[in-house]
Amino acid sequence: MTGQQYRASLADGRKVYFRGERIDDVTTHPTFARQVDLAARGYDRLYSADDNARNDFLSPPKTVDALRQRADSNFDFLTAISWTTAMTLLTAADRIESRRPQGSKAMRAYVQEMQRRDLRVMQCITDAKGDRSLPPSKQPDPDSYMRVVERRPDGVVVRGAKLHIALAPIAHEVLVVPTKAMKPDEGDYSIAFAIPVNAPGLKIVNVGSEAPGADPRDHPLAAENFASHSFVIFDDVFVPNDRIFLDGETDCAASFAHALGLWIRIEGLVGMVVQADLLVGLAQLITEANGLEKTSAIKEKITDMVIHASTLRATLEASLAHCRTLPDGTLAPDELFANVGKYIGAAEWNVMVRHLHDIAGGSVQTAPSMKDLDNPETGPFIRKYMSGKDGVDGEYRLKLFHAIRDATISPTGVYRMMANLLGGGGLNTQRIVTYYKYDMKGAKQRALEAAGLAKPG
Amino acid sequence: MTGQQYRASLADGRKVYFRGERIDDVTTHPTFARQVDLAARGYDRLYSADDNARNDFLSPPKTVDALRQRADSNFDFLTAISWTTAMTLLTAADRIESRRPQGSKAMRAYVQEMQRRDLRVMQCITDAKGDRSLPPSKQPDPDSYMRVVERRPDGVVVRGAKLHIALAPIAHEVLVVPTKAMKPDEGDYSIAFAIPVNAPGLKIVNVGSEAPGADPRDHPLAAENFASHSFVIFDDVFVPNDRIFLDGETDCAASFAHALGLWIRIEGLVGMVVQADLLVGLAQLITEANGLEKTSAIKEKITDMVIHASTLRATLEASLAHCRTLPDGTLAPDELFANVGKYIGAAEWNVMVRHLHDIAGGSVQTAPSMKDLDNPETGPFIRKYMSGKDGVDGEYRLKLFHAIRDATISPTGVYRMMANLLGGGGLNTQRIVTYYKYDMKGAKQRALEAAGLAKPG
Amino acid sequence: MTGQQYRASLADGRKVYFRGERIDDVTTHPTFARQVDLAARGYDRLYSADDNARNDFLSPPKTVDALRQRADSNFDFLTAISWTTAMTLLTAADRIESRRPQGSKAMRAYVQEMQRRDLRVMQCITDAKGDRSLPPSKQPDPDSYMRVVERRPDGVVVRGAKLHIALAPIAHEVLVVPTKAMKPDEGDYSIAFAIPVNAPGLKIVNVGSEAPGADPRDHPLAAENFASHSFVIFDDVFVPNDRIFLDGETDCAASFAHALGLWIRIEGLVGMVVQADLLVGLAQLITEANGLEKTSAIKEKITDMVIHASTLRATLEASLAHCRTLPDGTLAPDELFANVGKYIGAAEWNVMVRHLHDIAGGSVQTAPSMKDLDNPETGPFIRKYMSGKDGVDGEYRLKLFHAIRDATISPTGVYRMMANLLGGGGLNTQRIVTYYKYDMKGAKQRALEAAGLAKPG
Amino acid sequence: MTGQQYRASLADGRKVYFRGERIDDVTTHPTFARQVDLAARGYDRLYSADDNARNDFLSPPKTVDALRQRADSNFDFLTAISWTTAMTLLTAADRIESRRPQGSKAMRAYVQEMQRRDLRVMQCITDAKGDRSLPPSKQPDPDSYMRVVERRPDGVVVRGAKLHIALAPIAHEVLVVPTKAMKPDEGDYSIAFAIPVNAPGLKIVNVGSEAPGADPRDHPLAAENFASHSFVIFDDVFVPNDRIFLDGETDCAASFAHALGLWIRIEGLVGMVVQADLLVGLAQLITEANGLEKTSAIKEKITDMVIHASTLRATLEASLAHCRTLPDGTLAPDELFANVGKYIGAAEWNVMVRHLHDIAGGSVQTAPSMKDLDNPETGPFIRKYMSGKDGVDGEYRLKLFHAIRDATISPTGVYRMMANLLGGGGLNTQRIVTYYKYDMKGAKQRALEAAGLAKPG
Repeated sequence: MTGQQYRASLADGRKVYFRGERIDDVTTHPTFARQVDLAARGYDRLYSADDNARNDFLSPPKTVDALRQRADSNFDFLTAISWTTAMTLLTAADRIESRRPQGSKAMRAYVQEMQRRDLRVMQCITDAKGDRSLPPSKQPDPDSYMRVVERRPDGVVVRGAKLHIALAPIAHEVLVVPTKAMKPDEGDYSIAFAIPVNAPGLKIVNVGSEAPGADPRDHPLAAENFASHSFVIFDDVFVPNDRIFLDGETDCAASFAHALGLWIRIEGLVGMVVQADLLVGLAQLITEANGLEKTSAIKEKITDMVIHASTLRATLEASLAHCRTLPDGTLAPDELFANVGKYIGAAEWNVMVRHLHDIAGGSVQTAPSMKDLDNPETGPFIRKYMSGKDGVDGEYRLKLFHAIRDATISPTGVYRMMANLLGGGGLNTQRIVTYYKYDMKGAKQRALEAAGLAKPG
Repeated sequence: MTGQQYRASLADGRKVYFRGERIDDVTTHPTFARQVDLAARGYDRLYSADDNARNDFLSPPKTVDALRQRADSNFDFLTAISWTTAMTLLTAADRIESRRPQGSKAMRAYVQEMQRRDLRVMQCITDAKGDRSLPPSKQPDPDSYMRVVERRPDGVVVRGAKLHIALAPIAHEVLVVPTKAMKPDEGDYSIAFAIPVNAPGLKIVNVGSEAPGADPRDHPLAAENFASHSFVIFDDVFVPNDRIFLDGETDCAASFAHALGLWIRIEGLVGMVVQADLLVGLAQLITEANGLEKTSAIKEKITDMVIHASTLRATLEASLAHCRTLPDGTLAPDELFANVGKYIGAAEWNVMVRHLHDIAGGSVQTAPSMKDLDNPETGPFIRKYMSGKDGVDGEYRLKLFHAIRDATISPTGVYRMMANLLGGGGLNTQRIVTYYKYDMKGAKQRALEAAGLAKPG
Repeated sequence: MTGQQYRASLADGRKVYFRGERIDDVTTHPTFARQVDLAARGYDRLYSADDNARNDFLSPPKTVDALRQRADSNFDFLTAISWTTAMTLLTAADRIESRRPQGSKAMRAYVQEMQRRDLRVMQCITDAKGDRSLPPSKQPDPDSYMRVVERRPDGVVVRGAKLHIALAPIAHEVLVVPTKAMKPDEGDYSIAFAIPVNAPGLKIVNVGSEAPGADPRDHPLAAENFASHSFVIFDDVFVPNDRIFLDGETDCAASFAHALGLWIRIEGLVGMVVQADLLVGLAQLITEANGLEKTSAIKEKITDMVIHASTLRATLEASLAHCRTLPDGTLAPDELFANVGKYIGAAEWNVMVRHLHDIAGGSVQTAPSMKDLDNPETGPFIRKYMSGKDGVDGEYRLKLFHAIRDATISPTGVYRMMANLLGGGGLNTQRIVTYYKYDMKGAKQRALEAAGLAKPG
Repeated sequence: MTGQQYRASLADGRKVYFRGERIDDVTTHPTFARQVDLAARGYDRLYSADDNARNDFLSPPKTVDALRQRADSNFDFLTAISWTTAMTLLTAADRIESRRPQGSKAMRAYVQEMQRRDLRVMQCITDAKGDRSLPPSKQPDPDSYMRVVERRPDGVVVRGAKLHIALAPIAHEVLVVPTKAMKPDEGDYSIAFAIPVNAPGLKIVNVGSEAPGADPRDHPLAAENFASHSFVIFDDVFVPNDRIFLDGETDCAASFAHALGLWIRIEGLVGMVVQADLLVGLAQLITEANGLEKTSAIKEKITDMVIHASTLRATLEASLAHCRTLPDGTLAPDELFANVGKYIGAAEWNVMVRHLHDIAGGSVQTAPSMKDLDNPETGPFIRKYMSGKDGVDGEYRLKLFHAIRDATISPTGVYRMMANLLGGGGLNTQRIVTYYKYDMKGAKQRALEAAGLAKPG
């Protein structure tokens, strides 16, 4: 598909809402237009005129170098998320093969369809959840978790809501999976499928952060670093049989969330490694612009940031160095190191930002806009008074402040912070996975030997 | 003054700019209207019809209880900042009395004028600064710090810019003080004065965060917790003699910044104590709404928040318990404890926020708006799927998320974060003050005794 | 009692063991002699020749100044612990009055006996505990918690062990209390009493740290900062009726631990405040001796230490400023602030020590001994090469290193670290108490108001 | 050499002092005997009866696997330190080759001599330093840094002291290198050489921690985890020409410290990775023995420990994955990741220990000794009351406590803590190296691109 074809493909009757109003055309609405533009450029970048072309980007990497390269490839969000969707489907297909072979087959076929039709498919995992201390089947409202409410010969009807869904208003389809493990009596909740976003009964409420401001020059990172979120309502939506990947196999319900978690966390870790270097670079540039590159208290803070960025990178390198080959040849990064990295990055992001703000000072928040620089009544003064050490002109410093603002406290920055913290589950999820992936048996053996309670192995 | 009189007083020809355009009437412009409303209500609250009325709120507290009460009084920002201005003037008047008695006299007279005319006066301290490693007199651009460029019999002409100025577009006057200590040859930079914001040559570029969103229901904290900032340009502004508080007494230049620092930090500390309790309360409420009040991992995080909130409060209590009486009877809180509290609060704010987000989850960012709740096509689903444990309805939970968002990541929340971190100087400023206010001599004596190198005192 | 009378009073047949051997005379055994000397000096300090003299030190303070003075009084451990015993008894006597009035009466009478006979009485609280996940009555071994195994007309016979008992080998008596709340069927475990350490069946195994080295000059802090611990065995010990303070009132069992906890934590907090200042002083002195007082990286670390020391002091000041008057006039410090302070001090002690070591360097561990300085073959070289900046001689620096070592990593230092961490319960205990003493209701109300879910109160 | 031959080789007239007295025979003195035993076993382990045998252990690894294997090889300290000496010599030989080829030749020849004669050679780097703010040539005492005081045709005479020298009393020789970079006029201070420890004028004052207690059963880790330190005096010691590696090439002075630093830090990192797993294992074992493996607050602490241990391991893995090949084929681990790992391990060690103590409780300090268990009067009670959950007997738990104590707070544990913190320089050294090894240029480029100030590379 070309970018233009992609744009056209979005006019499919989908029901999208924002701040109380229905959006008729997402390609022209100010809240979505920039995201559509970015996704369209992503299509143009991958486009091939060959009639038999298929999107190879959505194939799994089979060497460490390919995996590392994919990690660095810096695609637009819509494409990157679709890649995660494909990897999740392939990983989960292996895990449920013995229990529901027709599901595995449908999932692999669906990945091929994604490649052939060049589809962009978002993931839907988080349910409404109601009372978090109760399982799905014990909720005051039985719809608090996505469930099958009717079975027909040709498919099922589902009801529920999925939260925190990235970019649904501008994607083609969504992959819907159970948010967690299910109990034996929760078969109706053990449902996984894919469905177009314009399916009857499906409503998308776009939500969340303020839209980035009107002048893109003031928000240099927004285009490539912001994805809006949706609250997606399934008001009795019909799913045809060939799009059902799991239905009732309660013991497999968690396989999807686990597969998705691995790929989300490694994507998240890669993103945080890149951002950590960005924050270090911004801190060093503004310090130099201010003439303070030899000030000890500031170097200490930058060194803290360097240590953090390098620690994060070490976990990524260790995760790649110890990656495992799945049965179909897909390489999966090591989960222990990936989780540790994701945890540290999420936990320490705020301290990195605090350091950067402390170094850069109040102009992160109060730097005038580019239009104030354009205005002849104020521009010359802003240029004059925003200049730094000899040779550093006001516009240069102004742009650094805009970048720092956009990386940290603008809607784009806040989006990143929340995605870092909560993507792939909050801190507790990473802690639990880390604990279970750690070689505790080996550590205990070492301790027993040290205490003279076991022979050296 | 009544609120209405206050509104009228703002139509004085002031030059205010925002995003490249001049604002003709701040009382009706969407960016300022809410702040003007809030300030107007502050006037109505303090109004007295008595012809001889003066604003007693701007008088200094003389008992610990009065000081504590003032700390809790929860005035609008415009009034609260004006109080800090008055306290700063009275504190600094004592400090420069021996060097420039006419300055002290003018400052005390100015405070009385503020009270009599019911003026709101903002502080201007931070200069443009240019190369931060050089003093004012060595800058590539001599205007990088505010300076006198011409002396006349009836006053002086000043040039420079002051950054990060709160609420200047809706105040009456500004107090301008040197940003730091000056050297003997920096007499032209040792200038302090007050001036109306409509003085010829004075331009106010309003800057900074996005304006809070259009629907106030989505931003419950914005009204009382957000102050816009300005970049204030002094393009050769004339200051009459009776408004000059310091002019050339270089050894006194730092007295203003020190006096202001004390009051800003104690105000900041009070604000952070209040906010810390607010964040704890929000964390506990959303936990209960989710049915997770017995979950250990969450209780651990709330306990961390409680420890932080109580530690902050302890520093405030210690600062009040050890306050000192200035020569004119004004009570000044203890600087060591106030600085320690300000430092801890600023340094740990981000961790408090991280805990709150980790507890509350993604809906902090992705909770739909109140208008989505109003819309009959989406509202019933949002109410249904945003509900929590039995008895917790969707609107209640939605409002909690809006409050958490507004307290932490909306423009209001981000304003708070930056104000906490940078108000009264960044972390390093607090560290330096703490170091110098600590009883190091006593600590060394104790250590010498312990090492057997000194007799017990 | 004079110090000499105290020494004589220890020859009472007590059964004390150390490293597999029974100690016949604790006053002359190298492990105990220094502690006995110190305690004896404490007696001489308080001695009055008046026949009717009673030890007023063991009375409760009734003004904040008296409480603060007591906190600073710097008594030897044996006396200080006895004071805590007395305060605990008076506090707990109030709490159990309505349930066991004869117990309250016996406790108050016992405090008077302590004062009249000038007794030193240690506390026994921690039981053996067995399986920590089970209550006393469900243990594999019913003796895992102290219990009554026989009731006689004139008293009870108890069995069990109490761990981590300070200075029992050189005290007169021990106060034994339940380690925690008991269930209705755990009446035999709800036993509190006082008993002389030479009671038949009572055995004291002295344990723990290495004894401090032979040359007291190398351990300047040891004399006043080290208390050995014991493992105390109650092998069916008879307790007469007038020494029984609780017996079977299961609902009162926790009152003793709570009362003791308050006083231990406030004592611990006072001790940590004093130590924090000591560590700061040592850091500053060794920095100056090294000529590095202007080095930024070191000043940063000292500033961190200063902030910590001042934060701790703030919690103590806040705890004293908000102390409460018990029914009998005893002043009790505020528990919220005391717990917060104890928690922070315990949690951060290791970081303070790390900073000090990082500043002082390897000679903390490798500074030669005073005897090496005495030895003419090595002494002159040590003096020469241990000297610091001009005017700082080698012996002075050597003594600073000995003090730092003794404050942190010698058996004395390690004792302090463990006492700071575990005295009054580990970190979790302080967290739980802090959580329950915090005004959560107020915080929730504030949050509801902010969210527009409640009217301002 | 066999262990027996090694023992005999130590009777060479060396001058060793401890606590004011000269030690005639280190092989039988209680302070040294255990360390000699351990080193002798190390000899026996590597012994070959072949007449042409040479110690291949001292050769450099040439593959990543060999490097990893060496890291895990768990040799006694004396052998391990000698390996670091050899690696340092080979690495530094490359670096000074162009400036002093005869030095490089002598260094390589010396490594071959070490292999052939099976010598154990310790490193001497830290000087006395006097006033740390002054360079060697400006010191009040010119001997504060090791220097040449006389030049003869056959060699030089040196004077000075070297501090914190591991195991010198039981080694054969010492390698002496400049502690830092030297200035052009500091030629006499730019001296590096090797010399036997019995060289005339060389005196070794053994110093530092208490000797581990008398009963090795109470100190299970001491044998393999403790190395005494020395203060080594060079009272005009003659060095023959063929043992001089650097003399006057001031610009090469730092090459030795840098080479040594790399190998010490990687050794330190390996050691900390091993210890981190040990501490996790001990924490888990004592938790299970206490029956608390399901208690959330404890699992949280163990998870913190797991995250730390895994982060450390990630830095080691990343350092190995990115190792570089030196010109002679020696593999050198990546310095950025090695330094980051060393820094994190050193900075966080205390928190790991605090968690372990908090989990294990007071018996870490107060567990009775094995002799108390042997004593029939006390042993049965200790066994009874030290038992844990059903099936966990008292001796098992006692040994766990002894291991925890020995790993953390015994002289062995304290040695480890100090070695972790200060080995290879304190925290600041690691910070500086990390800062300089980081790809700051790349980070700045990324930031410039993000700010729209540079084209994507």
